[in-house]
Amino acid sequence: MTERVLTGITTTGTPHLGNYVGAIRPSVEASRAPDVESFFFLADYHALIKCDDPARVERSRLEIAATWLAAGLDPQRVYFFRQSDLPETPELTWLLTCVTAKGLMNRAHAYKAATDVNLAAGKDVDADVTMGLYCYPILMAADILLFNAHRVPVGRDQVQHIEMARDIAQRFNHLYGRGRDLFVLPQAQIDEELATLPGLDGRKMSKSYDNTIPLFEGGPKALKEAVARIVTDSRLPGEPKDPDGTPLVTIYDAFATPEQRAEFRADLRAGLGWGDAKQRLVDLIESHIGPMRDRYAELMAHPERIEEILQDGARRARRIATPFLAELREAVGLRPMKALPVTAQPRRSEAAKPQLPVFKQYREADGQFYFKLTAANGTVLLQSRGFAEGREAGGWVKRLKTEGAAALAEAPVEIPAGVAREDVEAALGALVAASEE
Amino acid sequence: MTERVLTGITTTGTPHLGNYVGAIRPSVEASRAPDVESFFFLADYHALIKCDDPARVERSRLEIAATWLAAGLDPQRVYFFRQSDLPETPELTWLLTCVTAKGLMNRAHAYKAATDVNLAAGKDVDADVTMGLYCYPILMAADILLFNAHRVPVGRDQVQHIEMARDIAQRFNHLYGRGRDLFVLPQAQIDEELATLPGLDGRKMSKSYDNTIPLFEGGPKALKEAVARIVTDSRLPGEPKDPDGTPLVTIYDAFATPEQRAEFRADLRAGLGWGDAKQRLVDLIESHIGPMRDRYAELMAHPERIEEILQDGARRARRIATPFLAELREAVGLRPMKALPVTAQPRRSEAAKPQLPVFKQYREADGQFYFKLTAANGTVLLQSRGFAEGREAGGWVKRLKTEGAAALAEAPVEIPAGVAREDVEAALGALVAASEE
Repeated sequence: MTERVLTGITTTGTPHLGNYVGAIRPSVEASRAPDVESFFFLADYHALIKCDDPARVERSRLEIAATWLAAGLDPQRVYFFRQSDLPETPELTWLLTCVTAKGLMNRAHAYKAATDVNLAAGKDVDADVTMGLYCYPILMAADILLFNAHRVPVGRDQVQHIEMARDIAQRFNHLYGRGRDLFVLPQAQIDEELATLPGLDGRKMSKSYDNTIPLFEGGPKALKEAVARIVTDSRLPGEPKDPDGTPLVTIYDAFATPEQRAEFRADLRAGLGWGDAKQRLVDLIESHIGPMRDRYAELMAHPERIEEILQDGARRARRIATPFLAELREAVGLRPMKALPVTAQPRRSEAAKPQLPVFKQYREADGQFYFKLTAANGTVLLQSRGFAEGREAGGWVKRLKTEGAAALAEAPVEIPAGVAREDVEAALGALVAASEE
Repeated sequence: MTERVLTGITTTGTPHLGNYVGAIRPSVEASRAPDVESFFFLADYHALIKCDDPARVERSRLEIAATWLAAGLDPQRVYFFRQSDLPETPELTWLLTCVTAKGLMNRAHAYKAATDVNLAAGKDVDADVTMGLYCYPILMAADILLFNAHRVPVGRDQVQHIEMARDIAQRFNHLYGRGRDLFVLPQAQIDEELATLPGLDGRKMSKSYDNTIPLFEGGPKALKEAVARIVTDSRLPGEPKDPDGTPLVTIYDAFATPEQRAEFRADLRAGLGWGDAKQRLVDLIESHIGPMRDRYAELMAHPERIEEILQDGARRARRIATPFLAELREAVGLRPMKALPVTAQPRRSEAAKPQLPVFKQYREADGQFYFKLTAANGTVLLQSRGFAEGREAGGWVKRLKTEGAAALAEAPVEIPAGVAREDVEAALGALVAASEE
């Protein structure tokens, strides 16, 4: 079976060399594997969470699309589209929102990190937290589930979001699947082997450390200037150098063949000067990146070509997404109007498992706490009086659930007119039986 | 100017006579006013929050659409559509989600009521709360703002949601409007005069009290049976009766002309029996409802006609919604790819107000708290060391903001390579100046 792999591409910032080696290159390579159907999308709805500067969103989408295409992503072979070109995504987000427990979102690392910072700073727990940040895992679940992706390559920090997508998918399947799975449960794919490139100072290359080497930006000149700033020790040309663990060599390795790697090390041990070594690194990177940079420049000069590629990608992706969403709409009851049977007949799968009555606790406008017992068909079987304390209402619900009809005489409840007492007793009996299972 | 009025119709349950008198009839009447453009939509995305039974969602949408049409809503005169037929709605919901403060949602009455019940019952604060319930005000804001509705007739319990829609609209206007208002700020319209019909027992007619009179369901027979159960006192025929404050008379009033009202009261005072009075009430209601019930039956027998009406309504509504959403997408930066200036030129409105540098506090994977100062162009000007306590980081930020460059010598921060100290000092100076404004 063809396996579906889905990769979301953040569209904030401009990719640097570390992004290329750590994410773009391996993803593009993986997309060429046989028996894999790859989906790549520009996560521009996500970008809006963090970035309220429209010009930056616009620029970043363009640069990043051009980067991936220049780096060899084949839009004929894969599905390459903008998230915001699929109206199915926000619609599915809403369907999933309705089945997602709020408690699940409370546990999201990104949200918790924000609240930790707020609490530590003595601020309101949710200060500066937007609903976008908070709901982000649901949007991400929609991205994945819309294509029933089997695998989602992610960093460690994103694994929890895949688990949440699984949780949400399971809940949806359970509520609406009627015995079949509407959604595939996606797997996170963490590539432990994946190199994270060191930056100029030897720490992980990252914009937040301001230690990046540009990918295309600034041309060969900027590349050369950045490489010149890579930290080395102060050994002079002619002195033997230890190649292991220096960022220069690690970056070299990321582009070199095994033979080139061995030769570079041998030359450094033999006294190759850092200046010459840096020139060799520049040449090596340039041999890989140079042709891509030309393609990049060509694409950036013709944004209408990128637009066309992405629109074509969206059309192809929607050939999958549109009928699937129609299926999901049907499942939740958003159906074209048609004649209905006079009384709704339960389907066999429903009839198989008897539906239990439900206690509901709620608070009225009078500030008091109430509960009622409702049969599966919606008939109210019991209605409590109001309690000043919710705990009191909860205590009665508990007794009725565990003691059943025995507690009925004492409980401060009324059986509504038209409801037979034996029906109420049977309902309570079913709940007691279910709790003992 | 034509005023836009938007009414959301809940699609759960079957409307009863109280819904007709309290909501349907006045809304239909109001939609006939001149200089008003009325939007009525079946809130079926909302229905999914409370109802995970697809058959019930389906049935309810059909019955409620048929009810409104039978009650005289003119789909040629108003916009009458299903919420779920407008992909613009969930998309706008996402755009609004990104600008909505989580704190705002925390204050929503419906959410707070749910957490109060949970806390009182000793449960987790968010037990059984779905994200659908929590995010509901954002969806409602999208419903309203998508059409830039001026007025939204609501019950008292919904006023807060309109206020939230205003808050969200204001925030969006502020972030993305560039000086003009993308969204109209909607007004809640609470009709204090609006009769709430009493139910069989004299309390407000409501499904939760099980005291309703059916609207169309069950035909004239069910109507008569329900009216027979309206509570009265035990005065016999011939005894004078006090008409004031009895539910029977109040319900009669809701359908009667002033002359009929006076006559009914006089007859009761003169000794009209309750049985005869009830028959007169049945006849009066039936004279209004009967013809509607026939239209209702006809529509229910032809769901495809309702489908056609709603699809036509959606087409007409989308003639407004689609171009408006395109405008909003443009505003947030979701634009077709086009050539960009080599360096982004700030528009005049931006240039007018100098953009201040920003302190950001955050927590790293190492568990420590950090802060940095970032210039408006994204350059990192200051980078703090890690602190065990967020409070400590916060304290330094505060000092730097108020004391400016004076605090720089003591502060445990680094100026990144390539950043001039005088730029940092100028940035801090600007912050101090802004805080003193």
